[in-house]
Amino acid sequence: MSAGALGPADTAALLVEVLPYIRRFHNKVVVVKYGGNALAGSGGEETDALASFAQDVVLLRSVGLLPVVVHGGGPQIGDLLRRLGKETEFRDGLRVTDAETLEIARMVLVGKVNRDIVSAINVHGPLAVGLSGEDANLITAEAHSEALGYVGNVLGVDPTILRRLLAEGLIPVLATIGADPAGQAYNINADTVAGAVAEALGAEKLIFLTDVEGVRADADDPASLCRQLTAAALDDLVASGAAGGGMAPKAAACSAAVRAGVARAHILDGRVPHALLLELFTDGGVGTMVVP
Amino acid sequence: MSAGALGPADTAALLVEVLPYIRRFHNKVVVVKYGGNALAGSGGEETDALASFAQDVVLLRSVGLLPVVVHGGGPQIGDLLRRLGKETEFRDGLRVTDAETLEIARMVLVGKVNRDIVSAINVHGPLAVGLSGEDANLITAEAHSEALGYVGNVLGVDPTILRRLLAEGLIPVLATIGADPAGQAYNINADTVAGAVAEALGAEKLIFLTDVEGVRADADDPASLCRQLTAAALDDLVASGAAGGGMAPKAAACSAAVRAGVARAHILDGRVPHALLLELFTDGGVGTMVVP
Amino acid sequence: MSAGALGPADTAALLVEVLPYIRRFHNKVVVVKYGGNALAGSGGEETDALASFAQDVVLLRSVGLLPVVVHGGGPQIGDLLRRLGKETEFRDGLRVTDAETLEIARMVLVGKVNRDIVSAINVHGPLAVGLSGEDANLITAEAHSEALGYVGNVLGVDPTILRRLLAEGLIPVLATIGADPAGQAYNINADTVAGAVAEALGAEKLIFLTDVEGVRADADDPASLCRQLTAAALDDLVASGAAGGGMAPKAAACSAAVRAGVARAHILDGRVPHALLLELFTDGGVGTMVVP
Amino acid sequence: MSAGALGPADTAALLVEVLPYIRRFHNKVVVVKYGGNALAGSGGEETDALASFAQDVVLLRSVGLLPVVVHGGGPQIGDLLRRLGKETEFRDGLRVTDAETLEIARMVLVGKVNRDIVSAINVHGPLAVGLSGEDANLITAEAHSEALGYVGNVLGVDPTILRRLLAEGLIPVLATIGADPAGQAYNINADTVAGAVAEALGAEKLIFLTDVEGVRADADDPASLCRQLTAAALDDLVASGAAGGGMAPKAAACSAAVRAGVARAHILDGRVPHALLLELFTDGGVGTMVVP
Amino acid sequence: MSAGALGPADTAALLVEVLPYIRRFHNKVVVVKYGGNALAGSGGEETDALASFAQDVVLLRSVGLLPVVVHGGGPQIGDLLRRLGKETEFRDGLRVTDAETLEIARMVLVGKVNRDIVSAINVHGPLAVGLSGEDANLITAEAHSEALGYVGNVLGVDPTILRRLLAEGLIPVLATIGADPAGQAYNINADTVAGAVAEALGAEKLIFLTDVEGVRADADDPASLCRQLTAAALDDLVASGAAGGGMAPKAAACSAAVRAGVARAHILDGRVPHALLLELFTDGGVGTMVVP
Amino acid sequence: MSAGALGPADTAALLVEVLPYIRRFHNKVVVVKYGGNALAGSGGEETDALASFAQDVVLLRSVGLLPVVVHGGGPQIGDLLRRLGKETEFRDGLRVTDAETLEIARMVLVGKVNRDIVSAINVHGPLAVGLSGEDANLITAEAHSEALGYVGNVLGVDPTILRRLLAEGLIPVLATIGADPAGQAYNINADTVAGAVAEALGAEKLIFLTDVEGVRADADDPASLCRQLTAAALDDLVASGAAGGGMAPKAAACSAAVRAGVARAHILDGRVPHALLLELFTDGGVGTMVVP
Repeated sequence: MSAGALGPADTAALLVEVLPYIRRFHNKVVVVKYGGNALAGSGGEETDALASFAQDVVLLRSVGLLPVVVHGGGPQIGDLLRRLGKETEFRDGLRVTDAETLEIARMVLVGKVNRDIVSAINVHGPLAVGLSGEDANLITAEAHSEALGYVGNVLGVDPTILRRLLAEGLIPVLATIGADPAGQAYNINADTVAGAVAEALGAEKLIFLTDVEGVRADADDPASLCRQLTAAALDDLVASGAAGGGMAPKAAACSAAVRAGVARAHILDGRVPHALLLELFTDGGVGTMVVP
Repeated sequence: MSAGALGPADTAALLVEVLPYIRRFHNKVVVVKYGGNALAGSGGEETDALASFAQDVVLLRSVGLLPVVVHGGGPQIGDLLRRLGKETEFRDGLRVTDAETLEIARMVLVGKVNRDIVSAINVHGPLAVGLSGEDANLITAEAHSEALGYVGNVLGVDPTILRRLLAEGLIPVLATIGADPAGQAYNINADTVAGAVAEALGAEKLIFLTDVEGVRADADDPASLCRQLTAAALDDLVASGAAGGGMAPKAAACSAAVRAGVARAHILDGRVPHALLLELFTDGGVGTMVVP
Repeated sequence: MSAGALGPADTAALLVEVLPYIRRFHNKVVVVKYGGNALAGSGGEETDALASFAQDVVLLRSVGLLPVVVHGGGPQIGDLLRRLGKETEFRDGLRVTDAETLEIARMVLVGKVNRDIVSAINVHGPLAVGLSGEDANLITAEAHSEALGYVGNVLGVDPTILRRLLAEGLIPVLATIGADPAGQAYNINADTVAGAVAEALGAEKLIFLTDVEGVRADADDPASLCRQLTAAALDDLVASGAAGGGMAPKAAACSAAVRAGVARAHILDGRVPHALLLELFTDGGVGTMVVP
Repeated sequence: MSAGALGPADTAALLVEVLPYIRRFHNKVVVVKYGGNALAGSGGEETDALASFAQDVVLLRSVGLLPVVVHGGGPQIGDLLRRLGKETEFRDGLRVTDAETLEIARMVLVGKVNRDIVSAINVHGPLAVGLSGEDANLITAEAHSEALGYVGNVLGVDPTILRRLLAEGLIPVLATIGADPAGQAYNINADTVAGAVAEALGAEKLIFLTDVEGVRADADDPASLCRQLTAAALDDLVASGAAGGGMAPKAAACSAAVRAGVARAHILDGRVPHALLLELFTDGGVGTMVVP
Repeated sequence: MSAGALGPADTAALLVEVLPYIRRFHNKVVVVKYGGNALAGSGGEETDALASFAQDVVLLRSVGLLPVVVHGGGPQIGDLLRRLGKETEFRDGLRVTDAETLEIARMVLVGKVNRDIVSAINVHGPLAVGLSGEDANLITAEAHSEALGYVGNVLGVDPTILRRLLAEGLIPVLATIGADPAGQAYNINADTVAGAVAEALGAEKLIFLTDVEGVRADADDPASLCRQLTAAALDDLVASGAAGGGMAPKAAACSAAVRAGVARAHILDGRVPHALLLELFTDGGVGTMVVP
Repeated sequence: MSAGALGPADTAALLVEVLPYIRRFHNKVVVVKYGGNALAGSGGEETDALASFAQDVVLLRSVGLLPVVVHGGGPQIGDLLRRLGKETEFRDGLRVTDAETLEIARMVLVGKVNRDIVSAINVHGPLAVGLSGEDANLITAEAHSEALGYVGNVLGVDPTILRRLLAEGLIPVLATIGADPAGQAYNINADTVAGAVAEALGAEKLIFLTDVEGVRADADDPASLCRQLTAAALDDLVASGAAGGGMAPKAAACSAAVRAGVARAHILDGRVPHALLLELFTDGGVGTMVVP
């Protein structure tokens, strides 16, 4: 054993607990939404978090699961806009996106955030392939509303290219730009895309790595953390406002996904080291699980 | 986590340690020699040990390893001989085997011990298939010496049927009866067969589950337990008599196997619960490892 | 031509008769029940009969049929019980089977009779593989009645392992031990198992090799031998007692099998040399044929 | 058995003799040269002979052999030439072939003889496909000599189309017209083509169905019939003139074929009913066998 | 560009027009009826026309289409009948066909016309394989009427052999002899066979290469050439007599084929060089197109 | 025909010229380097050029070729650097690239130029997939020199992911960022990458689409345009300075590629509409062809 931390008996007990999960999830698709916040800062901490996340994803793949990473990049887009002196307006929490803003957002998402995640994974081998929703018409988009410009909704997901890459043993990393049939690009909320991709792939799990502990019945009361919720109960929390703000699109995506056939959706605390492994391979959990 | 035994940090550390082993051994053959002694007693203890062994073997299979079980059955053969009033003579530790003794040995090995192991495994699913070395001419034998009668040596191993069953996801359980080209059966030392089968399959590992801690440099000194040995060093211990008695054929099989291409051979303490799992999936070990 | 026994014209006529049967039965499964009686005696006669049977089975395989051998072993079980001084009671022709008797029966069936048949076949090449109904959960059993102990009925047949072995060109030889879901073994009537296996495999033919000429309309009148019967007519003969004793389970198995999709069932006189070949490949026949 | 001609013992003995041949020749190619003489006459006798030949070929196919039929048609070509008032000259036994003669020969071979054989076979099912050596460039020819016009030698055989048809379970029937690389057709001796095709396919057997008993050491002495000959001994008989006339090209083809890897070549008496079956499936034989 | 005939702009425009057709017809079956008239003359002109046709067919194959050639041979049959002094009678434009006439027709179609087309194609490589409708029971025929003797109708088409040859990259060339289930051959109108084969193969196109410009609304008015017709309109023209004579069976075959699932049927002017290529790969056309 | 520009004879002649090229290049890889200059401007002209290029690439794919697009983006990188007020220095024509410049270059290449090309292609269907050299470790890089910072050389190409995408019918579009084994990204000259990728794929052709007519023997003399050059002659022109400036890396890549097994390399005038089609499918050409 590594160090003397665990005796043989504890270790054996854990192995007996872990191995059946590995069997159960073999060749099962797990869609992981990795938030832009985790990458937004500067300095070593963010790099460490990304490296640790990349290691977990590679470990999942190495024991037979099929991870798909979906990411956003709001803070990084904001950074470049500021540097370019481009002012943007927000309505209902969504950035009004003109053609120039869209081009900048696309550059950041596809050309920076996506690249950073791909690179972090590929330190471990030729595994990750970066994708945008425009590739092979993966995500068909439509305008969310006229007022918001090139902010898009998901109109359809064609998961063919994802299935092909997964079949080849690769890890798709997806930036959430979509295109309409005429080729016009749109920036789409990454939580929504993650849910739609999980549905289209018939994923076993949809996992949101966030910077909170999970969903709370009372937003202000840490003790009200929900370990398990039905989609209906989660909808109620959203309706009541308990799961609002950034949690709302995640909650909506979880609820929709489990109703559409995804077995389980999870909102995990990405700040816990190796939260993905703990959630997938042990009886306990580290956040909120949503069931149909 | 199960119980509160381990905190998330310890659990995560262990997962990070365990998962790469699972990847490394994926689709690799592991030949496990399971001794008749472990089955010889009466009462619940032996049953528990067998059930625990069966669970470990099934777990190995479930995470992608390809286990092959080889077993003996000396104590059980002795039991039936006694009940039938058949006296047998031993020379150099080997039972002089006339035609009647051979028939009894075969009945016990194939019809009782093999069956008990198959049944214990198949409680977990349609996984185990019992084989004798006579099936599909798996083990070709020749007489060890005229004086010993139908005690055999391994003349050749045709692993085709083993490969076929492994390819179908099944767990072969092998009783160590062989046949010569004319169809005459022989009883063969199970340690020797385990080694020959591991060689023929190009196994990743050959594991002997015994009732001692491992190989000692000084047979009488528990502190002289060897954690790792080269084949040459092991040969020296056999030559010096330090690894004698029942350890001798195991040591010889380990030494021959690693010289013939088996990556690692192990002599483990089968009395440690889940010794197989601890050996295969953690950095530490629970016995003696033999390397080329 | 072999000797001058047959002229070219007779030989040519026979070839023209035989070849279409070989075509018709290509890749068709033939389940053959081989009785323990044929193996029960001592001395050369039994050995010759077994060798001749083995040759026929190998010839069937060599021209493209897929034979499956099912066997019993009542006389041999009785022998070992006697030698061990174990007394057994019969009720309605069935042996009351306690745990010790079951263990002895299993040893004899799997460890002796099955081995003898496998060995006799494998003199011709690496062809036969011995199986027990416990292997890969082939036969699921349940208790026949509380009074009889571990005498079992067939609850289900999973023919997967048989199909796999047949697909690999091997000849399965099946001892009729089954297990319930908890792993408890049972001894089951071999005629019944043969029928159930033929049904599960969708066999072309189910053949019982017996030591009588076939089914008689009047048990005491050799001239009343039936060459062909419908399942309904056979049921009548059983109901009337004409087909009683050891013939009853054979008749029941034949009747059930042809009703369940097996094309033809046969009760042959195994004492006629090469009865299997004569039945399968010529217009004439050597016993009773049962049709739907 | 059909009729009472054979008792069960004789029948069983014959079956034991026949079945191993069927196994041995499974999936083996047998090239059969069928002579134009057999088709040349008028009236029922020839039709019967063709029907019987067709039945034999279909039986070979049905039990797993891969027959290829090669045929000539000299008498039929002569018939049409006569009807058209076209005179032809022979040199060294070969017909001087101008462009018009070639066109007539091709019409007869491809459009009549080939069709008759294909039709006779296809009465038994969709089995035969007629081919000319021009199809898919099967036979590349060159002029035999300037003096003979469009009489050709075999320059090369591309057996691809034959292998494809055999793989589809079909029976190729080949008329022996070849073409040179510029597309010019030639008429080629059918015995020579049969040998070249057998070589190119690596056939197990090359069989000439003739209207004589076989090769004689003394052409005038029926008692000098040779049952088995080496290629060298056969060459000597040709050199000495004992195997002359129409036998010469057959003998040359046999000798060349066995030297080039065809296991056995046979010159059979096609007048014996079912000579093909008797030769292939029994220990005896009905003509001359040539071995390397 | 070859010579200076076309400038780059014209060439580029044509390429942009042509390439999508190649894509559209990739792996699509095109049945081409090639008339005996085109081959009937003597001298270089016919040879040139055949060579040009063969080149076009090979080009179609080389860019991924699957051409099937069907041919007649009326003029050639008439030639041989005359040379043999055999008089024949016509009824309703159909030749009364006795056994001798049939044999002669078959010789000419299969042994001459078919051969000429196969040879012309195979100058370009091992591509063409000649077939008669008797091969592998491709065309099942029945008598057209008692009065006409061995003139047949198509009773059924088994396209298996065609599909197999197409799958191997070969070009089937089909002579329109069929056989009834008893093996009796019949001569069948080639236009009818072409249509039936196109239906049976689910062809993309059925193309008749004729020696007229196409279908005219008024048989005597060249200006009334129809470029496109529905099946219904074509039926009307047949009913009105505008499309009579040799055009009638072509028109009927076109009409039936498009009603039975063939996408398009064409009656082209085979006198236009490379009419096949122009029709298939350009927006314009060179004859009459029939649509459902 | 489109318009009346070409008569049937000219069209047919062109078809006969074009179709064999389509056959020759079927399933052959063509690597096309598309320059950033073509995309650098603003307004409709560039968009039209890109749309026309995209149409050509899609047409190549649709008739069975396997195009791979490699692109640079120097002007676009310069644009963003200017907007961000980031000054850069050039040495020997190469941009000194610090970490910030690299991040900006990567964003532009992967997040803008690559996206624009992918979108233009995918207007025609789900065909293009954007890649960076970091994906699946496609391009391993090393520093060009310390002085230039993160300007890279190609150390190795692993074309596995390209082959997979091509096998799926997709069109890879490659941005020329590479990574060293530690995951550090580098910006690499796109001409060099195109050559290295063509070599690694064993491409049939490597095509540079430029804004000049081709290579001139005398840089200042339009009349000295070379239509065909050997690699050696091209090396001489580079050494003499005749092929200098931006032509130098293209010339070096062409020379290296044809020496390493690429059949032909071309430097084309991308300003000629559909230059790709004209070069690939007609006897003439529109630039300089380099042969081994």
